Amino acid sequence: MDTDTKDLFIGIDLGGTFVKIGCFNESMEMLSKISVPTDDQHPKVTLNSVVNALASLVRQAGLQLENIKAAGIGCPGVLDTKKGVIITSPNLPMYKGFAISRFVSEKIHAPCVLENDANVAGWGEYVLGAAEDVDDMVLLTLGTGIGGAVITDGKLIHSAGNSAAELGHIIIFPEGRECGCTQRGCAETYASATATAKRANEMLEEGAVSSLQNIFIERGEVSCKEVYEHAAQGDKFAYEITELTAKVIGLLCVDIFSYSNPDKIVFSGGMIAAGQTLLDRISFYFNKFIRKDINVKIEFCFANLREDSGIIGSAALARDTFCLV
Amino acid sequence: MDTDTKDLFIGIDLGGTFVKIGCFNESMEMLSKISVPTDDQHPKVTLNSVVNALASLVRQAGLQLENIKAAGIGCPGVLDTKKGVIITSPNLPMYKGFAISRFVSEKIHAPCVLENDANVAGWGEYVLGAAEDVDDMVLLTLGTGIGGAVITDGKLIHSAGNSAAELGHIIIFPEGRECGCTQRGCAETYASATATAKRANEMLEEGAVSSLQNIFIERGEVSCKEVYEHAAQGDKFAYEITELTAKVIGLLCVDIFSYSNPDKIVFSGGMIAAGQTLLDRISFYFNKFIRKDINVKIEFCFANLREDSGIIGSAALARDTFCLV
Repeated sequence: MDTDTKDLFIGIDLGGTFVKIGCFNESMEMLSKISVPTDDQHPKVTLNSVVNALASLVRQAGLQLENIKAAGIGCPGVLDTKKGVIITSPNLPMYKGFAISRFVSEKIHAPCVLENDANVAGWGEYVLGAAEDVDDMVLLTLGTGIGGAVITDGKLIHSAGNSAAELGHIIIFPEGRECGCTQRGCAETYASATATAKRANEMLEEGAVSSLQNIFIERGEVSCKEVYEHAAQGDKFAYEITELTAKVIGLLCVDIFSYSNPDKIVFSGGMIAAGQTLLDRISFYFNKFIRKDINVKIEFCFANLREDSGIIGSAALARDTFCLV
Repeated sequence: MDTDTKDLFIGIDLGGTFVKIGCFNESMEMLSKISVPTDDQHPKVTLNSVVNALASLVRQAGLQLENIKAAGIGCPGVLDTKKGVIITSPNLPMYKGFAISRFVSEKIHAPCVLENDANVAGWGEYVLGAAEDVDDMVLLTLGTGIGGAVITDGKLIHSAGNSAAELGHIIIFPEGRECGCTQRGCAETYASATATAKRANEMLEEGAVSSLQNIFIERGEVSCKEVYEHAAQGDKFAYEITELTAKVIGLLCVDIFSYSNPDKIVFSGGMIAAGQTLLDRISFYFNKFIRKDINVKIEFCFANLREDSGIIGSAALARDTFCLV
């Protein structure tokens, strides 16, 4: 690959508060990046700022807008990725029905691909991050919910209905807790960071004996981070809460193995701050529940692109969609 | 597509008792077919018969071996599809480690693709059968076990480990019945034809009140077919057995929806003899358990290639792998 080429690839990470924009060369080295605030009025206001910011980014890199070969946009919510339209996005209500790919594409005179944020992060880890050494991978994001991206034989799983890789809504306990999606017993409703804290808070409210009670009494709630900290410090109640989280993720990984049999499952999202213990306990439960009649080879690890994964992943997706090198 | 072309595509369906062979033109019209017995000694004995049979099939079609453009082989078991090697196959122990694609390819002087039987059947339904009108589909085979094939964006899901689409081993009840694979609560261990009969037999043994008791006392066991027949005739016990089967398949379909969001789930295998009632009850439980927060569009139907699905699917896979038309 010729890294002296002047081809540029743009990654745009559309968030509820900020839009991050990154400018990359063909080898996905970041040349410059910037953030602009998300305007809460019309998408065109924000996107015009994005395009203006882009022009200065490109100049910073010593190049011109004409050098842009393609752009990728990562966005949460339900998307029509084929048409490049945002159908609905909870944190970006003003983008409902907006044909964002066409708008950006016309401004920069280059093709533009739209993809949901989990898929973008997954593609980034696959091409340049924790899974760059394998062919088949799954990304699980452990945050407010549990999101996912599935890559098999070098391709992101999509589908006509745009609801593929909703891995947090795999049902673990059919008669279990009610999930925000209305199903019962989804993985997400036990094992996301939010759900882990919620389970702790419910039992602290009922008087559970725990070193977390002081925080709970003072502030009315504890965070997932605090639950993991107290578990690490030896609090039995906090440990049991985190064990159920690990058990549910372990069971989810068993189902992921049976469905698409990835070489690696990569974890990202706020909860990975819990560190190696989290991976160890997920592995423990995976090994406990997985079939023993065949040779099971799988690796668990953390994402390593971190806060720039959205712009790296969407720029890489733009390159790999339009300009396979 | 020019149907007057003399290009031939061969489908080979390798079974424990018979090998079925079909000869197709480019439009996948069957020109001739034949079966040869599976020799229980060396694979080469059987495959030499297959190649001889093939020569006469081709002559029957008024053509020559030189017209063969590609062949596909469908086979149960664990396969290395990239190398065309049968790793292990329970009903074909003598094929263990045999490089079948290379052997057949050298005999017919044409490329040869190896694929597991469920994937072959799935590809057949996708290209020429019940799912020919959609882009994304899943096949579920309901027989001795529950097998699967997943097609997204026009491609069969594979994986490095060759264990993708083992949909019968998605866990429905984490603390449930032990499955043949050693996991607990797999869909297969409740809802395959074999498991459905087994659950009935266990309870009949314990004295369950049912019109099936006469058969059970006389023969020591009832079949899945009989359970469905008695359920249809109004036997309450038999109905409850079939309801749990439908509930488990419904829950499995919820997980399938979340994972790869197919347009259609196509059912095949012996149990589909139960007919429309089976589909209706699966739909009932799917609709009961599926999320209500998004627009869910999915169709359930039966496979329609039936007994020739193995040879049609493998011939179509050969055409689509080597000679995309």
